[in-house]
Amino acid sequence: MPDSNRLLPNLTTRSLIPENQETPIHFLRSVLTPESYHFRRNHFPYPELPNPFLLSVRGTVLRPLELRAEQLSAWKAKSVTVALECSGNKRKKFSPEVFGEQWEDGAISQSEWTGVPLADILHLAGLQAGSQEVVFIGADRGHHPGVKGVIPFARSLSVKEALHPDVLVAYQCNGQAIPYRNGYPLRLIVPHWYGMASVKWLQDIEVIDHAFQGPFQTKDYQYYPSIHHDGGKHPVTTKHVNSIIQMPMDLSVLPVGVYVVEGIAWSGTGAVEQVELSLNQGKSWSAASLTPDPSRPYAWVRWTYTWHAEQPGQYEIWSRATDAAGHTQPLEPFWNRKGYGHHAIYRTRIQIE
Amino acid sequence: MPDSNRLLPNLTTRSLIPENQETPIHFLRSVLTPESYHFRRNHFPYPELPNPFLLSVRGTVLRPLELRAEQLSAWKAKSVTVALECSGNKRKKFSPEVFGEQWEDGAISQSEWTGVPLADILHLAGLQAGSQEVVFIGADRGHHPGVKGVIPFARSLSVKEALHPDVLVAYQCNGQAIPYRNGYPLRLIVPHWYGMASVKWLQDIEVIDHAFQGPFQTKDYQYYPSIHHDGGKHPVTTKHVNSIIQMPMDLSVLPVGVYVVEGIAWSGTGAVEQVELSLNQGKSWSAASLTPDPSRPYAWVRWTYTWHAEQPGQYEIWSRATDAAGHTQPLEPFWNRKGYGHHAIYRTRIQIE
Repeated sequence: MPDSNRLLPNLTTRSLIPENQETPIHFLRSVLTPESYHFRRNHFPYPELPNPFLLSVRGTVLRPLELRAEQLSAWKAKSVTVALECSGNKRKKFSPEVFGEQWEDGAISQSEWTGVPLADILHLAGLQAGSQEVVFIGADRGHHPGVKGVIPFARSLSVKEALHPDVLVAYQCNGQAIPYRNGYPLRLIVPHWYGMASVKWLQDIEVIDHAFQGPFQTKDYQYYPSIHHDGGKHPVTTKHVNSIIQMPMDLSVLPVGVYVVEGIAWSGTGAVEQVELSLNQGKSWSAASLTPDPSRPYAWVRWTYTWHAEQPGQYEIWSRATDAAGHTQPLEPFWNRKGYGHHAIYRTRIQIE
Repeated sequence: MPDSNRLLPNLTTRSLIPENQETPIHFLRSVLTPESYHFRRNHFPYPELPNPFLLSVRGTVLRPLELRAEQLSAWKAKSVTVALECSGNKRKKFSPEVFGEQWEDGAISQSEWTGVPLADILHLAGLQAGSQEVVFIGADRGHHPGVKGVIPFARSLSVKEALHPDVLVAYQCNGQAIPYRNGYPLRLIVPHWYGMASVKWLQDIEVIDHAFQGPFQTKDYQYYPSIHHDGGKHPVTTKHVNSIIQMPMDLSVLPVGVYVVEGIAWSGTGAVEQVELSLNQGKSWSAASLTPDPSRPYAWVRWTYTWHAEQPGQYEIWSRATDAAGHTQPLEPFWNRKGYGHHAIYRTRIQIE
C-alpha cells in the first residue's frame, strides 16, 4: 500500500512568475508555519543575490553604513512571533470583484523572526535633522504596469514608525536562516503592519527628508474607496482585526453530530481579546474559547467552539474578533478598488444531512 | 542561491479526509497529466487493498468469474486517452452557491488508460436473459450522510452502456501501474462520462436484472433543477462540451502588450470541432486555433488565440466550444442543487494598465 496515510495539503498556486502561493491555512494547526507552507507573495521574479550580501544605510544619516549580512548576528538580538498577512488576503471575497491576485484566506503565515531592532541600526547611523522617512529597498526588481523601466520593490516608513522597538532587520525565521523565498538573508519585519511593509531581501535603507513616492507606496497599497476616481485614497498600514473559521469549511456537507468549530484571530492594533460566534446571522453571539499567549503580542490567537449540529438543515457560522483597542470586524467589508484589508465578519455555510 | 528556478504549481487542497485536491490546470500544458498533478476526488478514506486483489464478476451471469488483477495483462489490451472530469468541476462558479466540494476549474486531468474492454469480460461471464444493469463496486467504503452503516462506493451502467467498446477495466495509467490514489490496481474507465462512472479500486462487477438504487446512483450524481423539491431530477451521465481559458488568469492585471490566450476544450458527446473567443461579451466571436488529435477522441483539445491588448482598460475574454454533435456552451450554467455539470461559456476578466 503506498502513501495512503501521508495526506498533506499544498500551497495553493495563484501565479508562478512572479510566484504567488497561498498557505493552506484551513489545514494547519501549528503555532509556527513550516517553511514549506509559508505563503509566497512576490511582485517580481526571485532575485539573484550578490555574494557577499551587503546592507547599506545611506541618505540623510550622519554615518553611512555598509554591513555584511552575517555581521548582524553579533548584535544584540530580538525575536517576535508575527502573523504576517498580505494586505490582499481575502481579496477574492470582495463584491463587486476586484482585480489583482485572487487570494482566499491563506495569504497569512506565522513565524518567529529574529534579528536586530532597526532602531539600533538607525542610531548607529545617526539621523540628520530633517529626516522624515526611511525607505527600504529589496533586491527584487522588474517591470511594474504603468511604470517605465526596471524598478526595485521599495517601501517607506515614517521615522517614528521606523524607530518602533519591535521593527526588526531579521536574519532568522523559526530559528534558521530566513528561507530564500521569504527574504534571505535579511528581511525587514514590521510586526503590526500588513506584509508589504516587511521588505524581503533587504539591501538598502535610505533615510530621506521628504515623502517617498515609489509606486508600491503611492499607487499600490492604497485604499481607493471609489471605482471611478482616486478621492479618499489613503495608505494601507496596520493589520485590521480579523478572524477565520478553519473548520468546518465553507459550503461543506456534514452528518448530524457535534463539531469543534476552530479558527484563528489576529490584529495589528492590539491583542485579540475576544472571539464570538453567531449561529443566527448576528442576532446573538457566544464567546469562543481562546488560547492567548501574552508573550507573543503579534501572533494569531487560536479559538474553538463546540457546535451541536443536531438537526439536518443549512446553517451559517459567523466569527467576529475584537482587539484590546476595541476594534472589531464589521458586518460588511470596506470595499476598495484594489481589494486590500478585507476583514468583515467571517461566514461559513454548512449543510447538515 | 537556492531553488529560485524550481517554481512549481501544486494540487489545490479542498479536503484531506477524504482527500480532494484539484489539478493546477491553469499551469499545465502537457497532453498527459503527471501523476503528481492528477486531481484526487474521494468519497471515503483511501482503502486498504487485499493481497491478492481479486476482481469478481457475479450476479445474473452464466459463468461467475474471479480474476486476479494481474491476470488481465494477458488479455488483449486497449488504450484510450481521456480528459477525466469530475461532474462537480466548476461547482464554485454556480450562483446561487451550492453545497459540496468547492471545485474551481481543476477537477479534471488527462491520462492514457490501458486495460481490457469491459465487454470482453462480460462476454466471458455471459449475461443471463433479463440482465439490465452492471454495478461496479470499489474497495473504498465509509459513511455517507443520511445513509445508515458503512457502504462502498458503487455505480451502475445499463448493459448497453457497459458494452461500449471503449469502456475499459484499466490496469495502467500513462504506461505505468495505476497510481494508488487514482484506483490501483484496477479502475473502470468510462471515457465519455463524468468521472464518477470511472470507479476506482474496482473489486466487484455485479450484473443485475433491475435498476441499481445505491446512494451514489440515485441520490448523488443527479441533477436537481429546483432548490425546493426533487421534481425534474435526472442522472448525471456524459461530459458536457466545455472549455477553460488557462492563461491569462481571471482578474489579473497585465501591462499593454500582445498575449497568447490559451486553453483547453473537451466534450463527452463528440469531438470538439470549434472554439471561439469573444472580446465584446458575446456580440461577435472569432475562431481560436485548435490542435486536435483524431487518434484521441476522448482527449481535450488545446487552443490558442492572439490578443492585442493595446489600450489600458478592463476586458472580458469569453471562450465557447462546440462539438461534432452540435452541442455548445450556454451563456448561463444550468443551475442545479448539487452543482453538477457546469459548462457555461468561460469568462476571464483582465485589467490592462
